[in-house]
Amino acid sequence: MDSKKLSDNFRETRELTTQICKPLAIEDYVVQPVVDVSPPKWHLGHTTWFFEEFVLKQHLENYQLFHQDFAFVFNSYYESVGKKVMRTNRGNLSRPSVDKVYDYRKYVNLHMQKLFETSIEDELCKIIEIGIHHEKQHQELLLTDIKYILGHNPLFPVYDNTFKELQVETQKQDWIDIKEGLYEIGHNGDGFCYDNELARHQVYLENFKISNRLVTNAEYLEFIQDGGYNQVLLWHAEAWDWLQQHKISSPKYWHFVDEQWMRFSLSGLKALNLDEPLSHISYYEAFAFAQWKGMRLPTEFEWEAAQDHFDWGQAWEWTESAYLPYPRYQKAEGALGEYNGKFMVNQKVLRGQSLATSPEHSRPSYRNFFHPQLRWQFNAVRLAKS
Amino acid sequence: MDSKKLSDNFRETRELTTQICKPLAIEDYVVQPVVDVSPPKWHLGHTTWFFEEFVLKQHLENYQLFHQDFAFVFNSYYESVGKKVMRTNRGNLSRPSVDKVYDYRKYVNLHMQKLFETSIEDELCKIIEIGIHHEKQHQELLLTDIKYILGHNPLFPVYDNTFKELQVETQKQDWIDIKEGLYEIGHNGDGFCYDNELARHQVYLENFKISNRLVTNAEYLEFIQDGGYNQVLLWHAEAWDWLQQHKISSPKYWHFVDEQWMRFSLSGLKALNLDEPLSHISYYEAFAFAQWKGMRLPTEFEWEAAQDHFDWGQAWEWTESAYLPYPRYQKAEGALGEYNGKFMVNQKVLRGQSLATSPEHSRPSYRNFFHPQLRWQFNAVRLAKS
Amino acid sequence: MDSKKLSDNFRETRELTTQICKPLAIEDYVVQPVVDVSPPKWHLGHTTWFFEEFVLKQHLENYQLFHQDFAFVFNSYYESVGKKVMRTNRGNLSRPSVDKVYDYRKYVNLHMQKLFETSIEDELCKIIEIGIHHEKQHQELLLTDIKYILGHNPLFPVYDNTFKELQVETQKQDWIDIKEGLYEIGHNGDGFCYDNELARHQVYLENFKISNRLVTNAEYLEFIQDGGYNQVLLWHAEAWDWLQQHKISSPKYWHFVDEQWMRFSLSGLKALNLDEPLSHISYYEAFAFAQWKGMRLPTEFEWEAAQDHFDWGQAWEWTESAYLPYPRYQKAEGALGEYNGKFMVNQKVLRGQSLATSPEHSRPSYRNFFHPQLRWQFNAVRLAKS
Amino acid sequence: MDSKKLSDNFRETRELTTQICKPLAIEDYVVQPVVDVSPPKWHLGHTTWFFEEFVLKQHLENYQLFHQDFAFVFNSYYESVGKKVMRTNRGNLSRPSVDKVYDYRKYVNLHMQKLFETSIEDELCKIIEIGIHHEKQHQELLLTDIKYILGHNPLFPVYDNTFKELQVETQKQDWIDIKEGLYEIGHNGDGFCYDNELARHQVYLENFKISNRLVTNAEYLEFIQDGGYNQVLLWHAEAWDWLQQHKISSPKYWHFVDEQWMRFSLSGLKALNLDEPLSHISYYEAFAFAQWKGMRLPTEFEWEAAQDHFDWGQAWEWTESAYLPYPRYQKAEGALGEYNGKFMVNQKVLRGQSLATSPEHSRPSYRNFFHPQLRWQFNAVRLAKS
Repeated sequence: MDSKKLSDNFRETRELTTQICKPLAIEDYVVQPVVDVSPPKWHLGHTTWFFEEFVLKQHLENYQLFHQDFAFVFNSYYESVGKKVMRTNRGNLSRPSVDKVYDYRKYVNLHMQKLFETSIEDELCKIIEIGIHHEKQHQELLLTDIKYILGHNPLFPVYDNTFKELQVETQKQDWIDIKEGLYEIGHNGDGFCYDNELARHQVYLENFKISNRLVTNAEYLEFIQDGGYNQVLLWHAEAWDWLQQHKISSPKYWHFVDEQWMRFSLSGLKALNLDEPLSHISYYEAFAFAQWKGMRLPTEFEWEAAQDHFDWGQAWEWTESAYLPYPRYQKAEGALGEYNGKFMVNQKVLRGQSLATSPEHSRPSYRNFFHPQLRWQFNAVRLAKS
Repeated sequence: MDSKKLSDNFRETRELTTQICKPLAIEDYVVQPVVDVSPPKWHLGHTTWFFEEFVLKQHLENYQLFHQDFAFVFNSYYESVGKKVMRTNRGNLSRPSVDKVYDYRKYVNLHMQKLFETSIEDELCKIIEIGIHHEKQHQELLLTDIKYILGHNPLFPVYDNTFKELQVETQKQDWIDIKEGLYEIGHNGDGFCYDNELARHQVYLENFKISNRLVTNAEYLEFIQDGGYNQVLLWHAEAWDWLQQHKISSPKYWHFVDEQWMRFSLSGLKALNLDEPLSHISYYEAFAFAQWKGMRLPTEFEWEAAQDHFDWGQAWEWTESAYLPYPRYQKAEGALGEYNGKFMVNQKVLRGQSLATSPEHSRPSYRNFFHPQLRWQFNAVRLAKS
Repeated sequence: MDSKKLSDNFRETRELTTQICKPLAIEDYVVQPVVDVSPPKWHLGHTTWFFEEFVLKQHLENYQLFHQDFAFVFNSYYESVGKKVMRTNRGNLSRPSVDKVYDYRKYVNLHMQKLFETSIEDELCKIIEIGIHHEKQHQELLLTDIKYILGHNPLFPVYDNTFKELQVETQKQDWIDIKEGLYEIGHNGDGFCYDNELARHQVYLENFKISNRLVTNAEYLEFIQDGGYNQVLLWHAEAWDWLQQHKISSPKYWHFVDEQWMRFSLSGLKALNLDEPLSHISYYEAFAFAQWKGMRLPTEFEWEAAQDHFDWGQAWEWTESAYLPYPRYQKAEGALGEYNGKFMVNQKVLRGQSLATSPEHSRPSYRNFFHPQLRWQFNAVRLAKS
Repeated sequence: MDSKKLSDNFRETRELTTQICKPLAIEDYVVQPVVDVSPPKWHLGHTTWFFEEFVLKQHLENYQLFHQDFAFVFNSYYESVGKKVMRTNRGNLSRPSVDKVYDYRKYVNLHMQKLFETSIEDELCKIIEIGIHHEKQHQELLLTDIKYILGHNPLFPVYDNTFKELQVETQKQDWIDIKEGLYEIGHNGDGFCYDNELARHQVYLENFKISNRLVTNAEYLEFIQDGGYNQVLLWHAEAWDWLQQHKISSPKYWHFVDEQWMRFSLSGLKALNLDEPLSHISYYEAFAFAQWKGMRLPTEFEWEAAQDHFDWGQAWEWTESAYLPYPRYQKAEGALGEYNGKFMVNQKVLRGQSLATSPEHSRPSYRNFFHPQLRWQFNAVRLAKS
């Protein structure tokens, strides 16, 4: 593995994380308005802790921990490494301060630089590479968590008024025909991938059609106006309960103000653009919408088999597939093995990438996954039919 | 369709439900110790209501409802048919009395008899057939719910001291080899099946091995004694939380009393027989146990492809598969369409049948499904490996 | 103490409990629709257990427990005597059966009879007397719990169609003047009383006026129609939250059906009689109503000082007083001391008696107490002003 | 009323609030680790909003609101004035920023200064006076909330390492005899008081003894070491449940580290000083401790009758009294009337003052009140006996 390239990638990735946070006020770094959203300073600390825990502590001679309690504060879910701060408590911690967390980043960056100046074994390169990809994942979460924090504040603060979110869908609706047959699924080649993209294997698919474009806000508004949220037969049983319990009747970040649909985005609260792709909906809503259309969501295998026939990348696309291990799936050894496998129950797969996805963190075999009710990511819908 | 055969099947099924309840005290019919378990009298009423609502009310001339509020009391989850009694409230209803519910059964049976004496169209026969199969499903639930009710009473009452639960596993452990290739999956032929067993379709499977027998209590005890419940890396993240929250460290109905493992069964509290198949475990535990063995659970497709090479039937076998629609899946029309499709999220598939399964309610393509944490069914584990 | 009189009192009290349950179906004995309401069979067993635990077990030679697990099943809150069945679980226990519980009652009655034939020391007589009064309290709870069980069933079953609940208030509204001064408060004389009625002590009261009659349904309906439930300034802060959370806008058992106010009573669902005393309201509602009238509730001391100037007895009257110990209050020794003292926080005192109160279980110094939100007792309002 | 004095008092009070917050990091202003604790920036905004809402908006000509949404963000519980931010959500709001909140304070201070330059009617003076006292109350809450925020952070940050909390108790234990008789209770004279301290009235007290000093940590440690937390008969029923549910076995801020009792204070985590007064205990613990000593807590009337015989002021003293209205109590008109009266249920009275109480915010008739389980205030115990 090319150590220079790795070191550059490390530096650029670390720098980008800092860039993402630049528009924030100190106060924005601290809060956790809901359990799934972490405070930005936690992301900054946690991605740093990863390098300290799995790289420096074990591989840089004489490395001194920056602070002995930080492992406790910034560990997320690596149960095998030590006692973590309960996830719901992250937003209660005013300290370490944001400045201190940035010092922590600098300290770890500096020591990583020292490490890069030594000769690094391939095994360690791989761990660093995982650390880099781990941080890229958190870059996307940072953006969506920031959107949540600002978008749930009654003052609707702007993150960056030049920030471009979803772009208008310009293609006419068309259907791509995919022929039945055996398709190769999973990561292929030498580049980085997560363990959950392996083993590459064959899946038999029937004939199907898949849309060339994402569903738009205009299409979804029709569904709303047709009473889609009130037609029980369109919904999964647990989706229906969820609608009632949370009084949900539109996508997240939509607000009906003075007889007009508005939408909060990272550039502020603005009139809803009907020609943009629909986003911030749950799997439940994606499914109900497809039912209402008399169609369905593609499976992740259909999506992967068809993906080079259409453009993808503005938003993650819900699939009908549950997040399950591929044949011959092998969890990584030790704590790093906690990364993916332990989430393989009760989650749905999303494919593609979004506007918030970091550069070089996207590939056709990438499997994103979330619980079916979650809406704070840039989620979208592409329809399919048999 | 043969109307005489249907009528006989109806009568026998209805009679068997009554037989299952015979050993109960009146009081046992009433309670609902946990949300998933329904009071036996509710099962008696609900299965009856199905025939009243979907058959008699619409197809028997001049039919008078037995009681106008029973639809409200005995509807379960058919959201489109009317307001249901909240599931958690079922155990709060002392009335209608058990006698009244039996009167309701008789009344509906009588009118069904009248209907059978008329000429019945095929479409209606199909609905009656679904009603019969619906009742067979509830027969199994009745037995497992009764077991729950008695097994969570500090007096450990006996249901029937001659009742035979799981039989000792006598086969030696062996591995069946299944070759890679395309396999036909789903219901085949003319007999009854649910909508979720269709469409019959092809699935590509890799080479795999599957056990000729179920995991035994002895094997699971080894897992416990090796500290399996305390090794976080064996468990899904949400499984681990579930273990801590509910303080779970053994299968349901196991009790460690005076230095000995006991197990509650429908014939009472007895010493655990180590040679019996393990049962009453969650998917989470099934998965963790397989991890600990360095193996895995089969997918439902592997199971179906291999099923005529081994005996199955003492207990439902957890698979690794999520409960999802097959290609070209079509929900039945109207309220009957609420039967299966709306549960196709966040559940796992179980295959086979159990000692509590009703006669003629078993076939290789049958797809049972439950949430991964549920343990009150007769659930078991068959291991597989690649 | 007169042993013959005690024995008679015991027998009559035990018999009355049985009488109260006579109209019940077996099923009615079993359910617990809400945590505060106990299944009737639990009341039957618990009052019996009291005599077994505190009397027979310790004082009758060679007494054999009826069943070794019953102490576990029927203990309520006597934490010091052994592990109790969690209160919320009472309604999950189908066994012991109702028949068995009646056998238990007979068995204990029989052995109590044996005990009465021996010479009983005064100390023991006192404990038996407490047991009798304890059972009388449960007789009132039995009636109100039965009302709750039947009144929350969608079929609204009738307990006894000749049962007379509240009687029409015939007196004209008048105000009784009580002069300032020192008043003696607390039990006086030789008869039985609970520890919470002692020590008798002096309280200084200012001049006040107290109503000669209870508030009627008509008066409360005015409050409702004036929007009383929507005027935040009338309510305690926690009362307001309680209203919103439970969507409360009328007394318990009131139903607005076809443009008419109906009320469930033990004789069934009937049109609301406007001239009857208001009942089944919480302290919160009693307080808000008094605020709306520009008046207040009396304190328990004012009530006791004034009580021989008006009739009382149809329903318990909420007072403004918190349930606190009197000066020189002494808890009884041992487990019996758990009876009253441990509830002396966060409860309000009610004075008087109700139509459900047992004979000889009423006196001017009697202090009933409930949490301020509870409404299933026969609670009423008598107004006062300074 | 002296307008110059009022204006000085206003300015000094506002300044002191700012002083209290000086040692905080920006991040400390934002978090709300538990529902009862508010973020410091919320206190800063809320006390300012009081003057804007009740004074400037209505009484300063041409006053422009600082920001139209601040009323929504900083209203606390004044239900009649407008929609409030749900109390549990305060810690989710990163904006307005701390800087902005300080701007808000300056803006309102400036306009209050303008108002003071006009002629102010007595009625308005009274409202301003309430606003000043309101802010003094929040000063105490600010300190205790800051202690909570820092004391529940795993890094145990120091607020001010010169901060003096509780002082060692140097007096020998002695008992003050108070004679039976009628005592005047409630505020007397012209100075400011809250509505809950009126009307002044007479209470008859029996002979009693009250301790000259507060209970010390040493005495409470004896209680712990004697198993006080495990003796069910010492506790109220709901206290016992609370102990089990929250696993409580020592006062808040006590930590048993390396075989030594440590205590967090505003100057950091230090060894527990046994001679200091016990603090940060609930009413439940205060009561149980008194039971264990064979004594009791004084009532608020006993406390007030005896208070000039002992020193008080390090910490609030739990009394046995419930927080109830005095005879002839009158709520203030309108929204200001929400201040006290609406909390008069399910709370206990504390008397005295604490080290965190603001200057001029203490008097013998002052009635503080909290729910019995709350421990984050400087609460203490003074024993009494009959």
